[in-house]
Amino acid sequence: MTGDAGRLRFCYFTSFTPAGPPGAQWNNPDGVKFNYLDVDHWIKFAAALEAAKFDAVFFADHSGVHDVYQGSYATAVREAVQFPSGDPMTLTAALASSTRDLGFVFSANVIQEQPYAFARRVSSLDHLTRGRVAWNVVTSFQRSAWQNLGFDDMANHADRYERAEEFLTVVYKLLEGSWEEGAVVRDEVNAIYADPSKVHPIEHRGKHFSVPGIHVSEPSPQRLPFLFQAGSSDSGRDFSARNAESIFVTALNPAGARKTISDMQTRLEASSRLSSDLLFFIGTNIIVGSTEEEARRKSAEVDEMLSSEALLAFGSSTMGVDLSQIDLDSPVGEFKTEALQGQFRAIAEAAPDKSWTFREVVKGILTKRIAGTPEQIADRLEEWRAAGVHGINLGTLTGPFGILEFTEHVVPTLQERGLMQREYTQGTFREKITAGTSNAAGRWVNDRHPAARFRRVTKP
Amino acid sequence: MTGDAGRLRFCYFTSFTPAGPPGAQWNNPDGVKFNYLDVDHWIKFAAALEAAKFDAVFFADHSGVHDVYQGSYATAVREAVQFPSGDPMTLTAALASSTRDLGFVFSANVIQEQPYAFARRVSSLDHLTRGRVAWNVVTSFQRSAWQNLGFDDMANHADRYERAEEFLTVVYKLLEGSWEEGAVVRDEVNAIYADPSKVHPIEHRGKHFSVPGIHVSEPSPQRLPFLFQAGSSDSGRDFSARNAESIFVTALNPAGARKTISDMQTRLEASSRLSSDLLFFIGTNIIVGSTEEEARRKSAEVDEMLSSEALLAFGSSTMGVDLSQIDLDSPVGEFKTEALQGQFRAIAEAAPDKSWTFREVVKGILTKRIAGTPEQIADRLEEWRAAGVHGINLGTLTGPFGILEFTEHVVPTLQERGLMQREYTQGTFREKITAGTSNAAGRWVNDRHPAARFRRVTKP
Repeated sequence: MTGDAGRLRFCYFTSFTPAGPPGAQWNNPDGVKFNYLDVDHWIKFAAALEAAKFDAVFFADHSGVHDVYQGSYATAVREAVQFPSGDPMTLTAALASSTRDLGFVFSANVIQEQPYAFARRVSSLDHLTRGRVAWNVVTSFQRSAWQNLGFDDMANHADRYERAEEFLTVVYKLLEGSWEEGAVVRDEVNAIYADPSKVHPIEHRGKHFSVPGIHVSEPSPQRLPFLFQAGSSDSGRDFSARNAESIFVTALNPAGARKTISDMQTRLEASSRLSSDLLFFIGTNIIVGSTEEEARRKSAEVDEMLSSEALLAFGSSTMGVDLSQIDLDSPVGEFKTEALQGQFRAIAEAAPDKSWTFREVVKGILTKRIAGTPEQIADRLEEWRAAGVHGINLGTLTGPFGILEFTEHVVPTLQERGLMQREYTQGTFREKITAGTSNAAGRWVNDRHPAARFRRVTKP
Repeated sequence: MTGDAGRLRFCYFTSFTPAGPPGAQWNNPDGVKFNYLDVDHWIKFAAALEAAKFDAVFFADHSGVHDVYQGSYATAVREAVQFPSGDPMTLTAALASSTRDLGFVFSANVIQEQPYAFARRVSSLDHLTRGRVAWNVVTSFQRSAWQNLGFDDMANHADRYERAEEFLTVVYKLLEGSWEEGAVVRDEVNAIYADPSKVHPIEHRGKHFSVPGIHVSEPSPQRLPFLFQAGSSDSGRDFSARNAESIFVTALNPAGARKTISDMQTRLEASSRLSSDLLFFIGTNIIVGSTEEEARRKSAEVDEMLSSEALLAFGSSTMGVDLSQIDLDSPVGEFKTEALQGQFRAIAEAAPDKSWTFREVVKGILTKRIAGTPEQIADRLEEWRAAGVHGINLGTLTGPFGILEFTEHVVPTLQERGLMQREYTQGTFREKITAGTSNAAGRWVNDRHPAARFRRVTKP
């Protein structure tokens, strides 16, 4: 696959909600053609992505509701702001058998269940998809999610990552440390399914979790699924540098991405990993026109559909600030950025122009787009690639079926330019997604990853 | 569907494990043809059940490992005693799109996750299957499951049911009480997806759970999935009488079933429900022969494959007694039955013959079977029906693909006799499974069910 060395990786960025990608309007004429509750619509959508050789579909997720704006969930409910939502792991399973190569990145936060039960669900998904899943590790920023999941209140930022780190450690121990390779023997004649001496209790006793026992599922193709993360704060970036295999970089332009990538590579080395141990993804929406003018017109139509209330509801929740209480036209640079969370904080700190207003930041991030002809889109994507970006989390602001325009008109151009793969690499998601990098991986996390230290050497 | 008034309902009883049905040997020549990790095998299996008009596939589940026997998990691991296991909700989702009418009964215990997250997963499954799921409510009897899921130790029997009851209450409130009917408006023109004034926080604050918020999924076809339960202790039966819509009756013969059914009907009335509000299922394995002699021979072959170690490992765990520490040939009647748990306690208390030994009880329950010609099998099933049984949880001791013999040779006979449906009833699982009873249900639990009291009348 040497021809793919310079390729970009493509995930379609959506969620198990009426509108799909963030910023998209559920009532867009294209959007209403897609019924997110109908599994047959998802199957058709996944087939289109697979035919176009997309690497994966990426399911964002929030366990709660965006209820910071005006102190209420009313806008989120009325305007379907990533709401109502279904469970992305369930949707991933539903799409397992209709696809053969497409990967599935499901988001799951570490407060929704115990790591012991979660690890079994993850093994199940990896088995049923033959090793095609990736886990986007989420530490929920929604107070309502924490409060409904048995916590008095949301933990502070540092504690959230501390808890997430222990959750990951338990999952690493279960998936990598409990079953030695070769423990499953399936000896029919002697009626031995697995060798108990090669299955080990993990004996984890930590601050947040106590898991003395063994993992109850046998090792799946990847054991630990490929790990995505999107931490943008300082502690979030350190967390990613230690644990992630791919991260989502928040940047409004290639220069901003280059800066974050460079920072992350320094952090990787501080974690005894290689700078090539992490794939960098950026997110953008795509609007395709057969001429530049058509693309501009379609982009203007999207803008006309956009609800500023919906954007503010989403922005308030992800920024952690009730935007109804502040002057939206004041520059972000004048605000105390420590009060902001998530990607908005990263933008406010790294924005090319500190004079951007809150209104501009919210719209700029949520509806960030490349609008143009196939050639123009390819040109823009090449600029991201030149900045060190490995992949694109691509969305369409007109609902998931909007991808059909992209697959028909843009994918051939990208493939001609070597920007997108023409064939899938054989193997698991980890093998497919890292193919063509200087650090192509096998089925399992590499030896520098912290999960690897829990592996047991098989006794002779 | 008047011709179906006297029909029995058929679930295939299995689990997401190498051997499938309890008691089956994974290394049976038929069993090894079925790879439980291969979704395509499950799809083929589900298609066979659907072609034969089975009502559902029933996934048993244990979150832990059977480690009571000899104080170790060694036998369970070595002999694949319902182990290793995957998550049945994940498997259910994987089979959603390849089937149209088949139901899915997934077991899920109430200690594996928070009810808020569980409720979303349940709504997701009910949406993706178009209302074809049922939940078998399990209160885990495995100490190892509790210890790995964040509890210091297993709760005592009464506390387990108290906790389960509160878990159910939260699920009822979320699925029935949070969204009024009509809350989802999907008004494209005015960009109103749902009416926030019709979506309500449940404000649950109890002993075990605090869930102040709203349910984040919109109502699915059944809202609350059809509820199975298998409680056999006194408190288990009361729990079922209050909450279940179908129960699994442990009985070795029709007279035993009649006794339990009568007892349950009394309890139903004490819970202000009708005696017809509960469907009664019994479990049995089937061995088919074209002659009686062939059936007897095949049954003997199964016995030859059976591992007594595997049966004892399973029996020890489900009885709550390490059977390696007691005289297996002593009569069950001499044992303090209070020390026993689960179906074995019910048997020990209700067994036709108190002189049965532990060895006989374990084998008798786990490998209970009807072996015979299609006509003989039909005769035996008619005896169960005459005892008031509504449905059969049917297994095959040679692995899931053993069902092909049953569907080919026995189903036509059962359909001719009116013992099995020839066509599916339209609608959700609840409508399908209750069709033909004196109390056929709609999509939702009926008004006498405790979940119904959380419904909100839509404001005019």
